[in-house]
Amino acid sequence: MDATNGSQPLEPQAKAFFDSAPPLQNTHQITQNLVQFIQHNSSQSNGDSKRIVCVTSGGTTAPLEQRCVRYVDNFSSGHRGATSTYFLKAGYAVIFLYRGSFQPFCRSLPDDPLLECFEPTDELNIQREAYSEPVKRAIVDHHAAVTGGLLLKLPFNTIFEYLQMLQLVATSMRCLGPCAMFYLAAAVSDFYVPWKDMVEHKIQSGSHLLDVQLVQVPKMLAMLRKDWAPLAFCVSFKLETDSNILLNKAATALEKYKMHAVVANELTTRKEQVVVVTRAENIIVQRDNSHSGNDVENPLIKLLSARHAAYIKDSGSGK
Amino acid sequence: MDATNGSQPLEPQAKAFFDSAPPLQNTHQITQNLVQFIQHNSSQSNGDSKRIVCVTSGGTTAPLEQRCVRYVDNFSSGHRGATSTYFLKAGYAVIFLYRGSFQPFCRSLPDDPLLECFEPTDELNIQREAYSEPVKRAIVDHHAAVTGGLLLKLPFNTIFEYLQMLQLVATSMRCLGPCAMFYLAAAVSDFYVPWKDMVEHKIQSGSHLLDVQLVQVPKMLAMLRKDWAPLAFCVSFKLETDSNILLNKAATALEKYKMHAVVANELTTRKEQVVVVTRAENIIVQRDNSHSGNDVENPLIKLLSARHAAYIKDSGSGK
Repeated sequence: MDATNGSQPLEPQAKAFFDSAPPLQNTHQITQNLVQFIQHNSSQSNGDSKRIVCVTSGGTTAPLEQRCVRYVDNFSSGHRGATSTYFLKAGYAVIFLYRGSFQPFCRSLPDDPLLECFEPTDELNIQREAYSEPVKRAIVDHHAAVTGGLLLKLPFNTIFEYLQMLQLVATSMRCLGPCAMFYLAAAVSDFYVPWKDMVEHKIQSGSHLLDVQLVQVPKMLAMLRKDWAPLAFCVSFKLETDSNILLNKAATALEKYKMHAVVANELTTRKEQVVVVTRAENIIVQRDNSHSGNDVENPLIKLLSARHAAYIKDSGSGK
Repeated sequence: MDATNGSQPLEPQAKAFFDSAPPLQNTHQITQNLVQFIQHNSSQSNGDSKRIVCVTSGGTTAPLEQRCVRYVDNFSSGHRGATSTYFLKAGYAVIFLYRGSFQPFCRSLPDDPLLECFEPTDELNIQREAYSEPVKRAIVDHHAAVTGGLLLKLPFNTIFEYLQMLQLVATSMRCLGPCAMFYLAAAVSDFYVPWKDMVEHKIQSGSHLLDVQLVQVPKMLAMLRKDWAPLAFCVSFKLETDSNILLNKAATALEKYKMHAVVANELTTRKEQVVVVTRAENIIVQRDNSHSGNDVENPLIKLLSARHAAYIKDSGSGK
């Protein structure tokens, strides 16, 4: 496997990004949780290593002020990332690096499940009404995954937090070699205002025009592949609104960042169909509409899980 | 009461904003719901008019692309708006125009109440554990307010949706005269990209710099006071991160938009203290820390409700 990367000039940019970013809160606690989680799941009683996937989900924000009132955000419902439950079914332990309200196990529930799914029966009690079975399953399965040590949830908000946390997660997972997987579904800001260039206070609205200058976020996928976890199986996502450029952009990302697969999705059809772009082929994955409740992530994660298994076998270190 | 407004030049800007905005979805359904809600609550059996408040909550987004992937957002937890429950206690019917996940009645619950507040007891059942009483109260009270026709919830996302919906709500409430109140806690974008100036597709990340030019959103508070609901009691909010300019900015807003009160809050202390700025005086309102679960909105809404009652009496049309 070629784990080198041609984008050498990225490193100083990446270093500058991390050097100037506001320090992550609770680094120590996060690291400790990660180490415990990885240790728990990589040392199975039969000597096997469990496969661990880091699922990223939701959009990062790029603040425009240090004491942030305004920020540039990326559209992301968080639906794609919340499907990490399929990875649990496929035998993975899941590190869920997320922003947004969509949670694993809750995809089939309404936006306000607490208020929408329960009804008062009398003054003393409430009961699940409309969504009785899905609600029970969500709570039971979520609880089982968390208490069983199979799901670790780490929330982020800004691009600064996201990239620092991704680095922490990836360097912690490095020891897993090819058994680690990254499923990078988060919508990561392409542009940001460097912390040192940012005004401290809220931008005043007196002027008629606001001119915001943002610079490109260093492409950290290259760092992930080269330095943080070089042997991990990496899947990134490419979202476009223009289907004419989508597959080319995905193929370029595959090559440029040495991804093992890029999932190409178009904004309006992303829940029905995606294309998995690999070096060897483009694979169309479609939602199975014959059963209600099915979604495109079900066959997608089956496919990626199988590809990951083959990758581990090829690497000669899997069981 | 002086319902005129000196900002005559605003009207062409406001007209241009509405003319160029993408049309609101479901206008007919929203209007119908509003008319029914207002009719239900303004025709009490004893001939009295119930007071109705429109609470706005959460931040508006300003899209940067027509098929929106990126947008400028305003920080807003939605906590302030979610306190509209105090208005229900004070005898109001509430129109809740909102974005975000914080909902009325759920302020004391964790972010993911469904997953955090319930535990599986066995394979067949779940029970409320940690938050037993608050969870039950939230569900029971929310259900009572909605089924009793006292709470109408209207969600928005973009600045285009928000301002069109506010106009719909305000013109529908115009008939209530001074019995209507606006509690404008939403964090409304000061700047936006006009729809016609917006690129259609996702901005590509190839270039090193992104230069975003935004123009000022017309100050619709002037339209609300002058045209949409001239007799309504209007409370707006001013959030700043710099306490040195806060009270001056609030006083300027009071004068400029003919508000009846402006609630001045500073980003870091906003949950402990606010200042209600009126023409006659500045009133400091503080959270009562002697009881846990108290918040600053409790005394704030008591104060505003009393001021509104006096205003109705002065207008000569209240009971």
